[in-house]
Amino acid sequence: MNVDRMRAQTPGCAHHAHLNNAGAGLMSQPVLDAIRGHLDLEAEVGGYEAAEQRERAIADAYQAVGELVGVPAQQIAFTENATASFVQALSSIRFEAGDVLLTTSNDYVSNQIQLLSLQQHLGVRVVRIPDLPEGGVDPEAARTLITAEQPRLVCVTHVPTNSGLVQDVKAVGAVCREHDVTYLVDACQSVGQMPLDLEEIGADFLSATARKYLRGPRGSGFLAVSQRALDAQLMPLFPDLHSARWVSENTFEPAQDARRFENWEFAWSLVLGTGAAARYALELGLTEIDQRVRALAARLRAGLDEIEGASVLDRGPDLCGIVTTWIDGKDPRELELRLREEGIHTSSQSRDNAVLDYDSKGVSGALRLSPHAYNTEDEIDRALAFIRAI
Amino acid sequence: MNVDRMRAQTPGCAHHAHLNNAGAGLMSQPVLDAIRGHLDLEAEVGGYEAAEQRERAIADAYQAVGELVGVPAQQIAFTENATASFVQALSSIRFEAGDVLLTTSNDYVSNQIQLLSLQQHLGVRVVRIPDLPEGGVDPEAARTLITAEQPRLVCVTHVPTNSGLVQDVKAVGAVCREHDVTYLVDACQSVGQMPLDLEEIGADFLSATARKYLRGPRGSGFLAVSQRALDAQLMPLFPDLHSARWVSENTFEPAQDARRFENWEFAWSLVLGTGAAARYALELGLTEIDQRVRALAARLRAGLDEIEGASVLDRGPDLCGIVTTWIDGKDPRELELRLREEGIHTSSQSRDNAVLDYDSKGVSGALRLSPHAYNTEDEIDRALAFIRAI
Repeated sequence: MNVDRMRAQTPGCAHHAHLNNAGAGLMSQPVLDAIRGHLDLEAEVGGYEAAEQRERAIADAYQAVGELVGVPAQQIAFTENATASFVQALSSIRFEAGDVLLTTSNDYVSNQIQLLSLQQHLGVRVVRIPDLPEGGVDPEAARTLITAEQPRLVCVTHVPTNSGLVQDVKAVGAVCREHDVTYLVDACQSVGQMPLDLEEIGADFLSATARKYLRGPRGSGFLAVSQRALDAQLMPLFPDLHSARWVSENTFEPAQDARRFENWEFAWSLVLGTGAAARYALELGLTEIDQRVRALAARLRAGLDEIEGASVLDRGPDLCGIVTTWIDGKDPRELELRLREEGIHTSSQSRDNAVLDYDSKGVSGALRLSPHAYNTEDEIDRALAFIRAI
Repeated sequence: MNVDRMRAQTPGCAHHAHLNNAGAGLMSQPVLDAIRGHLDLEAEVGGYEAAEQRERAIADAYQAVGELVGVPAQQIAFTENATASFVQALSSIRFEAGDVLLTTSNDYVSNQIQLLSLQQHLGVRVVRIPDLPEGGVDPEAARTLITAEQPRLVCVTHVPTNSGLVQDVKAVGAVCREHDVTYLVDACQSVGQMPLDLEEIGADFLSATARKYLRGPRGSGFLAVSQRALDAQLMPLFPDLHSARWVSENTFEPAQDARRFENWEFAWSLVLGTGAAARYALELGLTEIDQRVRALAARLRAGLDEIEGASVLDRGPDLCGIVTTWIDGKDPRELELRLREEGIHTSSQSRDNAVLDYDSKGVSGALRLSPHAYNTEDEIDRALAFIRAI
């Protein structure tokens, strides 16, 4: 990979060692140009008129995002973020009291809260698939539970916010497909970081965000929808005039493609920025990005292992670009702020970001460092040197 | 009002006669500066770091939007649009089969579809309050129905998308308060166009968007929440880590202020743009904007009345800036496109935008012209001259 070129195309690289890509990645120049170009057009001709003028560019944004996850454009619904995507999919299941909703202990905190809300209000039962001894969802336990419980929905977060774990979403997906169970995968942290393919995973829904490893704008995300889910007429609980057509006093008709999971209104500047981010990632190559991100993260973990009082918290058979660590006697948020003063961007997490994972690891949070392909070995070493010095 | 100054501060005014403010209004320079400034900062320092740097500006955006609708900042939830706001409020009511959901025949199409979806899936009963003979919701009929049906929720769209009607939301609100019924007002088209006050209306929720008469960016909106609704512990069905805190394996705790109706992720550039739009409108004065918009709309209706074959469709005792018309033998969409070629921006609607209203008026849609305070009498007259000539 041409790291110098990537850095030259990323204005933020000149200012900081940005190791906070699991928070929000730095936008590249093509992404910024797409957003600003559309805002300028909106200012000149008006918001609706601008969207009509850019119809072809918008169609290409759907196409590019579809290519990222291996589906045609009509299976992509744009949303405002991964949580909005997750909710649109979740709300399309007509749960009844007693239904089982299967998930993992590493599923994202917001998803967990949403499932618990359904447990509280609809009387569904949230069941968590046990982890492997080495960490991450156990596919054989998933098989046992899916067979025994006949869940209405299985939700698995591919890469959690709280560690470098990559969960084996394909193995769980294979079981879901065998048993014809609806399967919702949260790819918020994995999209843009590694190759993804909806059908290979066996997912019905894949929720994702633009701002993290995909390096798109904040406030933009998407939901990829399987043809199975469309054919099964799954429909969000709160459709609008775009996802459905009002037909008569008491009837409406759902849209036939993934628009069914969208709402009408969009910040098209951000959608176009997301399309540009997808094209940019596709041109670099997701396999190449994945390899470089893993290498930088491995360098970081190896360095942390050598620092007295620093524990690497990431567990599991497969680790990606997110590195979490606990430094004895140091509050993660204070560490984050001290590193920021040195021009090193990281993030900190507290217990309520991952109650089950952090409790099981005996920590009250973590310092999280998340390199991207545009980061350099030197930036990793600077972060390590500073942590060592504290 | 200093119209020249307003136009000088609105780049789009130089290019077109923008009579499509019920679609999306033209953004002013302060709005554009707020959006671009934050995007630039995000590109330089990263999306999360930028939001932390602009904490005070963000707090002022909440404050400004609160002032627009007469509530303190902690009663404002930012969302992506009025529909997202409406859904957050709607999803906080724990409907049971048989519950009555009271609305009007002029409520916004997306809201209608959402209510019908609840009717279909939860077995609630959607009942529409009859109109006054002259048009718009009949407050006495509302009183009778509220007394007889004990609805779980009353929803009224203040100004519909499909005509200049202003519904008497205060009169309905007074009945809701007497009977302690939860009241959700959609102010999508009225915010930024006229003075609004949540308590004066008697609403529990007021859903709104930034892009229309408020002249903010696309993809931004807000929900104003009454202290009553917060005290009653109303909570959206799908909370996230921002609207609630994950406490233990099976429990979470709701936020105490209107954050309870937000999700964590935002395009902060658009939130700041919305704050700037609110400040801009407050400085101009909502009463002054209201008066000028009504005067321009009245000039437009008077002119249309004199054109053979043109019918003004707006009905009701109180009419605002939205002007809808049917021109005999002309398809509204074709008219819209021909006007656009002349540099005159309008919008067109089809039957499914307002099934009940358009069917009752015997038309299959409408051409919609929606002036704002920055429009000139000359622009109105040019639009009229062109329609006359067609």
